[in-house]
Amino acid sequence: MNRRREIVRRAAEIFLQKGVAQTSMEDIAQAVGIKREGLYYYFQSRNDILLEIILPQSDSLLLNLQRIIKSRMTAMEKLHAAIQSHLHAFYPAYLEMSVALREHYFVRDATKLQQLKRVWDDYSTLWTDLIKEGQANGEFKADLDPKMVAFAYLGMCNWFCRWYNPEKELSIDTIIATYFSLAATGVTALPAAAQ
Amino acid sequence: MNRRREIVRRAAEIFLQKGVAQTSMEDIAQAVGIKREGLYYYFQSRNDILLEIILPQSDSLLLNLQRIIKSRMTAMEKLHAAIQSHLHAFYPAYLEMSVALREHYFVRDATKLQQLKRVWDDYSTLWTDLIKEGQANGEFKADLDPKMVAFAYLGMCNWFCRWYNPEKELSIDTIIATYFSLAATGVTALPAAAQ
Repeated sequence: MNRRREIVRRAAEIFLQKGVAQTSMEDIAQAVGIKREGLYYYFQSRNDILLEIILPQSDSLLLNLQRIIKSRMTAMEKLHAAIQSHLHAFYPAYLEMSVALREHYFVRDATKLQQLKRVWDDYSTLWTDLIKEGQANGEFKADLDPKMVAFAYLGMCNWFCRWYNPEKELSIDTIIATYFSLAATGVTALPAAAQ
Repeated sequence: MNRRREIVRRAAEIFLQKGVAQTSMEDIAQAVGIKREGLYYYFQSRNDILLEIILPQSDSLLLNLQRIIKSRMTAMEKLHAAIQSHLHAFYPAYLEMSVALREHYFVRDATKLQQLKRVWDDYSTLWTDLIKEGQANGEFKADLDPKMVAFAYLGMCNWFCRWYNPEKELSIDTIIATYFSLAATGVTALPAAAQ
């Protein structure tokens, strides 16, 4: 089990460095310090390793969002919690998730790929529902297409992994605060009274 | 020249469908209806074709943004123009740019890759400058990190190509209006008087 975890972790690092397409099973075996045959004992292909990186994280992102939406918070509070949940998912597991986002279209296993797509579709739908909820109760602008708003925020949050360097940049909490501020009230300077 | 354009266009389509890593020069030659050797007359490698897709578009994105920033508009108007310029770049050339965004890290030609990175860095820096300008003159929230704001908006705009289907979705102008509304004042319902 520990060896399996180690393989997944090392593979994620190499995928990010070299790109999945440039990474061979041999590379992964070397990085872990085992023989190629030993690696095949755990995983049949590179893509199986990739899915093992992506799927559990996607599942837990979805579960968290379901919990947030079912809660008794206002839609605005839910938006805050959703951004927080999404960005926190990237943080401890930054490496794996950013690989997932960059490379998921290389997955070839049709069944598992379907599984992943279903989770991601459900996740986007839930985000759209959150926006609809806020529009229905008057908290959010009613004239915007809710799916488009949801995707705008998902884009904002997902792009984060393209440039964020946990060693150099501001803390994850500052990023969550910034993104929520932009999502809620945009970049326009607020009148002092409103703040 | 027409043949060259045709190769670039068809290659962009195949890259998007199959992923760059899964596309061979053979595939591209077949799609264009020429022999593999004929293709090599125009391009030495797959990545040369990719760069021919990416670089000119990145250059013109940068030029447009420079023009916008030098203009006499308010920072808020510039933000609107910048979002517009960015999303319009995706629209007529949707295919190529989305390929660029998904695959640019596969480029191996160090010199051209450097060239591309420089353009993209300059582009992000200009976006950050735009935000700083608005913060300095009181139009934008002063307490947010300008780079983070810039990347949030770039993410919002760039993610667009992951889900936007020009045949199915709302018009590009609706998307620009939506994104600008979110960027400027967020999702919060505005008091009637302010609108």
